[in-house]
Amino acid sequence: MALIVQKFGGTSVGSLERIEAVAELIIKTQQQGHQVVVVVSAMSGETNRLFNLAKHLDESPSARELDVLLSSGEQVSVALLAMAIIKRGHSAVSLLADQISIRTDNMFGRARVEHIDTRRLKQELEHNRIAIIAGFQGRDSEGNITTLGRGGTDTTAVEIAGVLQADECQIYTDVDGVYTADPRVVSGARRLNHINFSEMLELASLGAKVLHLRSVEAAGRYQIPLRVLSSFNPDNGTLISYKEEGMSDSPVTGIAANKDIVFYQFTASEASVLSQFLLALAKLKIDVDMLSQWSRQAAILGYAFTVQSNDHLAVLALLQSEPFAHKINDVVFELHQAKVSLVGLGIKSHPEILANALTVLAEQDIYPKLMSTAEIKATILVSEAQLHCAVNQLHVTFLP
Amino acid sequence: MALIVQKFGGTSVGSLERIEAVAELIIKTQQQGHQVVVVVSAMSGETNRLFNLAKHLDESPSARELDVLLSSGEQVSVALLAMAIIKRGHSAVSLLADQISIRTDNMFGRARVEHIDTRRLKQELEHNRIAIIAGFQGRDSEGNITTLGRGGTDTTAVEIAGVLQADECQIYTDVDGVYTADPRVVSGARRLNHINFSEMLELASLGAKVLHLRSVEAAGRYQIPLRVLSSFNPDNGTLISYKEEGMSDSPVTGIAANKDIVFYQFTASEASVLSQFLLALAKLKIDVDMLSQWSRQAAILGYAFTVQSNDHLAVLALLQSEPFAHKINDVVFELHQAKVSLVGLGIKSHPEILANALTVLAEQDIYPKLMSTAEIKATILVSEAQLHCAVNQLHVTFLP
Repeated sequence: MALIVQKFGGTSVGSLERIEAVAELIIKTQQQGHQVVVVVSAMSGETNRLFNLAKHLDESPSARELDVLLSSGEQVSVALLAMAIIKRGHSAVSLLADQISIRTDNMFGRARVEHIDTRRLKQELEHNRIAIIAGFQGRDSEGNITTLGRGGTDTTAVEIAGVLQADECQIYTDVDGVYTADPRVVSGARRLNHINFSEMLELASLGAKVLHLRSVEAAGRYQIPLRVLSSFNPDNGTLISYKEEGMSDSPVTGIAANKDIVFYQFTASEASVLSQFLLALAKLKIDVDMLSQWSRQAAILGYAFTVQSNDHLAVLALLQSEPFAHKINDVVFELHQAKVSLVGLGIKSHPEILANALTVLAEQDIYPKLMSTAEIKATILVSEAQLHCAVNQLHVTFLP
Repeated sequence: MALIVQKFGGTSVGSLERIEAVAELIIKTQQQGHQVVVVVSAMSGETNRLFNLAKHLDESPSARELDVLLSSGEQVSVALLAMAIIKRGHSAVSLLADQISIRTDNMFGRARVEHIDTRRLKQELEHNRIAIIAGFQGRDSEGNITTLGRGGTDTTAVEIAGVLQADECQIYTDVDGVYTADPRVVSGARRLNHINFSEMLELASLGAKVLHLRSVEAAGRYQIPLRVLSSFNPDNGTLISYKEEGMSDSPVTGIAANKDIVFYQFTASEASVLSQFLLALAKLKIDVDMLSQWSRQAAILGYAFTVQSNDHLAVLALLQSEPFAHKINDVVFELHQAKVSLVGLGIKSHPEILANALTVLAEQDIYPKLMSTAEIKATILVSEAQLHCAVNQLHVTFLP
């Protein structure tokens, strides 16, 4: 008998028919002899509907009240799912954040979980009742409703699995696992049966939609095995585990691609300019990526970096304002760039991978503008026009 | 400066435009120098929408989970109303049942309020913040969500007004007050500026839709003045107060009419049959009204009474089952009957009113089958076909 936490996202409970299918999936898990705790999102579309009501009243609505509003969506789905299970003759009970003391900080809209009281959950498990927990929501120390931001229900599920020391946290979503690359871009992309936690962390930080970075981080904190599966077609999905050995035959496990990148380069004669510039970007909450530096002449330093395209105008304005307008020269930028990242535990022990990647791309007349390597990741900047070709060539080479 | 509790029903907050209008009405009350606490229903249609979702999953859904589901409707409306007030530069805070400890018993779907903690509300009043309380909901001693049943938001408002010892509880609804009769039946019906609490209690118990009986009873327990007004056209409405003198020039204050009544009569030779029969009806939760008894012959007793038409088949079945089938004779029933009730504090000191009423009706060839008088009420049973004529004649006579 294992203790399994199952999380169902918005599309998984997006209609009454889906809720009934999920109820049966949960009951089946229990009938296989497992203990089950469930975490549920709002029905798909509901959070957007509520958000739009708020926006109609106030372009920037009260953050506290927005969380009160949005958290009602999960209250609806947990009640309906509990009803569907009870109708089928099994015991279930819906639980809101305050009923199991999901304590968070008071950052409305992006709160972090600080503590969860397990007593009520353990009681429900002892009575063989299926606890259906509202995801995405918490309560701060004053009893105000908070929400956990994007991917919040995944975070709730992982935190619940963590405090209960569950054997597995199953994230049911609308895709059936983690793929070697985006199947819409690479026709040969394959679902991975296993992936190492560190690899998943890299893929999530590169924006792979399947799991939100914060929930992967939380899983790592508790060392809880995560499994990504489809509630529409529940098979084995992808298991994210903490083993480092024998996970994969290939040094590369997956390839991530990110569009909407802007490439910048400039020169400066004072070395202190860069730190001033980075500080100014940080104040604007602009993330700088793939930063590199070179020395063009003796007294002149060259810099290159990338930002997301929605930060482009703010970066340009900053470069044209003092003190940078007078200290920075030769500014060049290029829109419509893309990052391709190879991720795999084998990369750190295979230093030839980046060289091989560059050789393969050169055969296609693709010459990256920037590249960077980290422990288990190698990233290359190409143009968006080259992205499809680059990802497919690299997939054929490293994940044949 | 007065402390005013304002309650807004579903149609009053039925759209974003209505919510904005209500926000302005609340702000105006505060700007007139009053302290304001607000209680809100779900947006109109929302409770029905949620109820239908539940019914789709289970014809008789879990009572606990139904309350979790339905109470989400008020969570939406309090958040939106608070946002609309904050947008206009005033302080407001939404509060759910658990945030002000609205403690109820554990009768899901029809819970009764046992206790409300006033500390948080008093804090908000001290800070001049408008508290926007979710109506209709409570929490039982185990922290389960409960709902208060029909008219629940009115009950919440009156209970809040009671524990805060408010100067007035204003019930904003879609009618602008209490009328001398149903304006759809009596063209000369007038809005009452004042009505006595006991009269209102009688009218509510006769099914006048404007206030639910339980909320009127609660107001009486706290001796809180109630005012019924329209949020669409807020004027003075009707004030329900506790004064007994000088409320009205006429001994009759209002006339209530109820259709869908079935008249029964039967005879029996044992006096004990009636009590057995009433006990059997009580077990079926059938309310018996206008019960009367007469002696037809020395040893034969005659009885007459009325029930609601939706109980008719159950009553018939009971009369045809043992022991009643053998003990009861001469059963007669008549469908499509109606009750007309005159209500007024003056009725107890004007015993001639019933006689006058019968005289007026006889002039129209209306001869009531049953009649009954109580302290401040006189009721007459006529056929539904006679109802319109009877009510209008009595209105002309007693409320000219």
